[in-house]
Amino acid sequence: MATHRFIPTHWHNVLGTRPSALEVASGDLIVTETIDANGWDKHGDKVATGPNPMNGPIFVQGAMPGDSLKVEIIRMTPTRPTGWTRASLAANVVDPEDVRTLPARDRATWLIDLAASTVRLENPPNGLEHLVLPLEPMIGCFGVAPALGQAFSTATSAENGGNMDYRGFGPGATVWLPVAVEGALFFLGDCHAIQGDGEIVGTGVETSYEIEFRLTVEKARLHVWPRGENAEAIFTVGNARPLDQALQHATTEMLRWLETDYGLDKVAASHLLGQVVRYEVGNVYDPAYTMVCKVEKRWLPPKG
Amino acid sequence: MATHRFIPTHWHNVLGTRPSALEVASGDLIVTETIDANGWDKHGDKVATGPNPMNGPIFVQGAMPGDSLKVEIIRMTPTRPTGWTRASLAANVVDPEDVRTLPARDRATWLIDLAASTVRLENPPNGLEHLVLPLEPMIGCFGVAPALGQAFSTATSAENGGNMDYRGFGPGATVWLPVAVEGALFFLGDCHAIQGDGEIVGTGVETSYEIEFRLTVEKARLHVWPRGENAEAIFTVGNARPLDQALQHATTEMLRWLETDYGLDKVAASHLLGQVVRYEVGNVYDPAYTMVCKVEKRWLPPKG
Amino acid sequence: MATHRFIPTHWHNVLGTRPSALEVASGDLIVTETIDANGWDKHGDKVATGPNPMNGPIFVQGAMPGDSLKVEIIRMTPTRPTGWTRASLAANVVDPEDVRTLPARDRATWLIDLAASTVRLENPPNGLEHLVLPLEPMIGCFGVAPALGQAFSTATSAENGGNMDYRGFGPGATVWLPVAVEGALFFLGDCHAIQGDGEIVGTGVETSYEIEFRLTVEKARLHVWPRGENAEAIFTVGNARPLDQALQHATTEMLRWLETDYGLDKVAASHLLGQVVRYEVGNVYDPAYTMVCKVEKRWLPPKG
Amino acid sequence: MATHRFIPTHWHNVLGTRPSALEVASGDLIVTETIDANGWDKHGDKVATGPNPMNGPIFVQGAMPGDSLKVEIIRMTPTRPTGWTRASLAANVVDPEDVRTLPARDRATWLIDLAASTVRLENPPNGLEHLVLPLEPMIGCFGVAPALGQAFSTATSAENGGNMDYRGFGPGATVWLPVAVEGALFFLGDCHAIQGDGEIVGTGVETSYEIEFRLTVEKARLHVWPRGENAEAIFTVGNARPLDQALQHATTEMLRWLETDYGLDKVAASHLLGQVVRYEVGNVYDPAYTMVCKVEKRWLPPKG
Repeated sequence: MATHRFIPTHWHNVLGTRPSALEVASGDLIVTETIDANGWDKHGDKVATGPNPMNGPIFVQGAMPGDSLKVEIIRMTPTRPTGWTRASLAANVVDPEDVRTLPARDRATWLIDLAASTVRLENPPNGLEHLVLPLEPMIGCFGVAPALGQAFSTATSAENGGNMDYRGFGPGATVWLPVAVEGALFFLGDCHAIQGDGEIVGTGVETSYEIEFRLTVEKARLHVWPRGENAEAIFTVGNARPLDQALQHATTEMLRWLETDYGLDKVAASHLLGQVVRYEVGNVYDPAYTMVCKVEKRWLPPKG
Repeated sequence: MATHRFIPTHWHNVLGTRPSALEVASGDLIVTETIDANGWDKHGDKVATGPNPMNGPIFVQGAMPGDSLKVEIIRMTPTRPTGWTRASLAANVVDPEDVRTLPARDRATWLIDLAASTVRLENPPNGLEHLVLPLEPMIGCFGVAPALGQAFSTATSAENGGNMDYRGFGPGATVWLPVAVEGALFFLGDCHAIQGDGEIVGTGVETSYEIEFRLTVEKARLHVWPRGENAEAIFTVGNARPLDQALQHATTEMLRWLETDYGLDKVAASHLLGQVVRYEVGNVYDPAYTMVCKVEKRWLPPKG
Repeated sequence: MATHRFIPTHWHNVLGTRPSALEVASGDLIVTETIDANGWDKHGDKVATGPNPMNGPIFVQGAMPGDSLKVEIIRMTPTRPTGWTRASLAANVVDPEDVRTLPARDRATWLIDLAASTVRLENPPNGLEHLVLPLEPMIGCFGVAPALGQAFSTATSAENGGNMDYRGFGPGATVWLPVAVEGALFFLGDCHAIQGDGEIVGTGVETSYEIEFRLTVEKARLHVWPRGENAEAIFTVGNARPLDQALQHATTEMLRWLETDYGLDKVAASHLLGQVVRYEVGNVYDPAYTMVCKVEKRWLPPKG
Repeated sequence: MATHRFIPTHWHNVLGTRPSALEVASGDLIVTETIDANGWDKHGDKVATGPNPMNGPIFVQGAMPGDSLKVEIIRMTPTRPTGWTRASLAANVVDPEDVRTLPARDRATWLIDLAASTVRLENPPNGLEHLVLPLEPMIGCFGVAPALGQAFSTATSAENGGNMDYRGFGPGATVWLPVAVEGALFFLGDCHAIQGDGEIVGTGVETSYEIEFRLTVEKARLHVWPRGENAEAIFTVGNARPLDQALQHATTEMLRWLETDYGLDKVAASHLLGQVVRYEVGNVYDPAYTMVCKVEKRWLPPKG
């Protein structure tokens, strides 16, 4: 298994079938540097334009439609000492009449202290002078090329992944994406130093990163929506509006998973989910919202 | 401060302005026994009909419209050794085309072991033979009479509370409800031995309980939606469909709370929420869905 | 069949089980005067408070839960020469970011010319100087008491009717409401001189009216949602959020109607609806939205 | 102005930036033959695969991002004597619990009588023996390439048009589409002999067509969503889920149009829309739903 150091020279604002920038074997390790959501790199230079410019695509040998691409997120290291956010809640996350009272969506700078593993506002407003948050790296946007020759803006998400902005997509997480084209064509970017649920100011703390991850093809692992796993839990991801529909997609995918991999029929899966399921909210700012359906491993029967 | 032992002789299927069954002073402690969602009591006798028959209402002296009723949930003890659930996911939580494949919504029995503090299926299907869940008591439905002489079924929820089915409403939680009528008129019932997020089989483990709680009037504490607090966090609750709107209500209420009680302006509150907010899903089965907006206390500035 | 002249002395802001203000036999004719949405009567005196104060309830002899109450709207005559509207689109009908640009929700006066059967702004803004609209009377809010002892604000709607704000509820329309309590307990008010689809400024041209209508009990006519009929079409009404769900309710009710009364099985009903159904939008301003599902009579097979 | 006879040799399942199949001058007339939603042509031969294979793209000289492409639908003539539909309502248009009772989604054949201008089922089920519907041609799916290099499946819709399935898109209608790429890149296909609102069986009467239309570039006519016009009315189109959001998009676009082209400020536009707006429902089957916002020309002030 090789390790590739991938240095992109241009970036993409869609996930789609584009000429591959790197070709790897299944199981290879990749180290790459991402720029932030607006295209600023580690030197603070604007090298690309938004939304969410992506590294990629990476062609994974052997990946064919119907397979699953396993993405292991191994390490994420910020590559500059600042990030930025918007200074107001997004209009769509408050009651419509209250939108009139929201402040301007100015940009604010945050300081990232890699040694201390913390993040804080450069110029904190009254009341937040002492707010020091933990560095919690996550990938905001990643995915594979969708089917049919479609290409989706990196400002939204779908079955193929995309701008899901889920806090759980950090080091230690493994994600499976449904392969729709030969080579899978994997893209990633838009990483955050920290982010609350929903990305409700329209940003996390946006910054540049060095990321290490592994891509592996799993044959004949059919699924419709992204699946994931970490040390404690397995989870599925639905992307749609309204949140109700994202929840339906994620729950339906989890039901399929419990049936095919854990040997539970629909009654057993219903009993399990009914009493132990957890939902977590990804992006609620974009055209498609993200809902995560999660089951802790300690409740699962043995696989197979 | 007195302690009342409240033994109801009839139950209510709505939260509304009804003759009070008990009158207490602000700050009094109440101990009562609830029956389950279908009206079965601790002896397994059916003493009332569904949906969610409520104890109450309790008139709290001094509570006037515009006040807030503080509810401290102190203790919840199951009063019988069994509970029940439905054996299929609800139709509205899976993709519409998949509804055709769901099993019948039969009732299943669960065994509650109070000494071991566990819950398990009486006749577990294949794969769940070893599933033993912790006893996690919670109140499914509680609230106060709404404004205008309205009366809402205990199968739904609104500004006044109701069937929110949020796991966080267990011992150790404090909840504030906006008072709309003199005496507040507090109702409660529909308690669960455990429940996953969303109540996606349409039930938690439904059983009868003895509950101890305190009701206190707080004057001039204006809010629109329920607020809550536990050892780690403060939270707000929005009840509506779709989930997007429930999220808007909860987020708007949290924004108000951060402004009035924590001295944050809208920019500061946006910065805080944007990077630390957590959303949790209550009921997604009823006419109104429930979304909880949460902020851990460690991130909050001092009050006042 | 008697004719009743019903002169209310007080009004209701909820539809619920309240002492009846008038008792009639099935098939009786009623003539009554309604006040406007804010409680102004035909003299311009404020005699009640909003939202949407209702005349009623009218107890219809013989009506029992499970029956249907047939409401024939025969005549609607405005009783004063002015009405009023709000001067801005509601915040929830534009894109969230655009809410910031909406004007204030001031009140504007409209002149009603009964002889000419027209409606126009008293002080038209630039560009609307020549706008003269037809008088198109309709009842904004009417319904029966809901089940279970529930009582719903006249600012919303449900299975029992309520604030549906559908333009089709004018003279010549017949509506069936599902009876949930003995006597049905019929309420009405909130009439408009004209209104666009959706009531998207939050009002039609609100004014006082004299209305003549007939109430008839139909036994054993089971339905869940309101049904209606006019010279050209039959229709069903769904009330819920989001509009998608209101559409599901209305479509499901129409499917039931086509099966039970027109002898179409689900395949035949699907063929018919698939190619001839029309949807019309009622209220999209209130907590519950209204969608109407309509089929022209010329496409229907003979009844029975 | 030239007339082009455009005979496609291959078809597209996405609207995106693809090599142009035809290049025309602004104002040129085009006559082309479309195949049906599943790829059957006028001979009943399957020449392409679904969803909704498109003719195109047509490159229109002079069209640049920020312009508007005016599409005049002049004539639509079915080219074969049969069409087909699905025999069941779609799962997403009925109440979730009722999905269990829906029939299979079989295909049914309809006979198109061009001389009589009628459409009827080949094998009508009981009750529909005498159902003869008018031929009402419409284009189900058409649009231009979206921005950013995106490409959207012809099973959905967005700002650039797509599978909107609006009955109003027939002969006599003029539609404006926002140009996002040089040449606009216009696609069309998926024509229907008739269709009810919403395309609630997932199809209209799907068949092949000959279509005559004109494409004209209008410079500096900025809009976000499709706009249209027919003899009686102007209208705007919003595509999104839920319907509430589609309605917001369409209403916001109409507000912009009334301001920029008809000289109405937001108060005047609110007054006008509030009392005369009509909403019509396009597709409610696809990932994105379609809502049309309509104003009759007789209520509009002179343009200027």
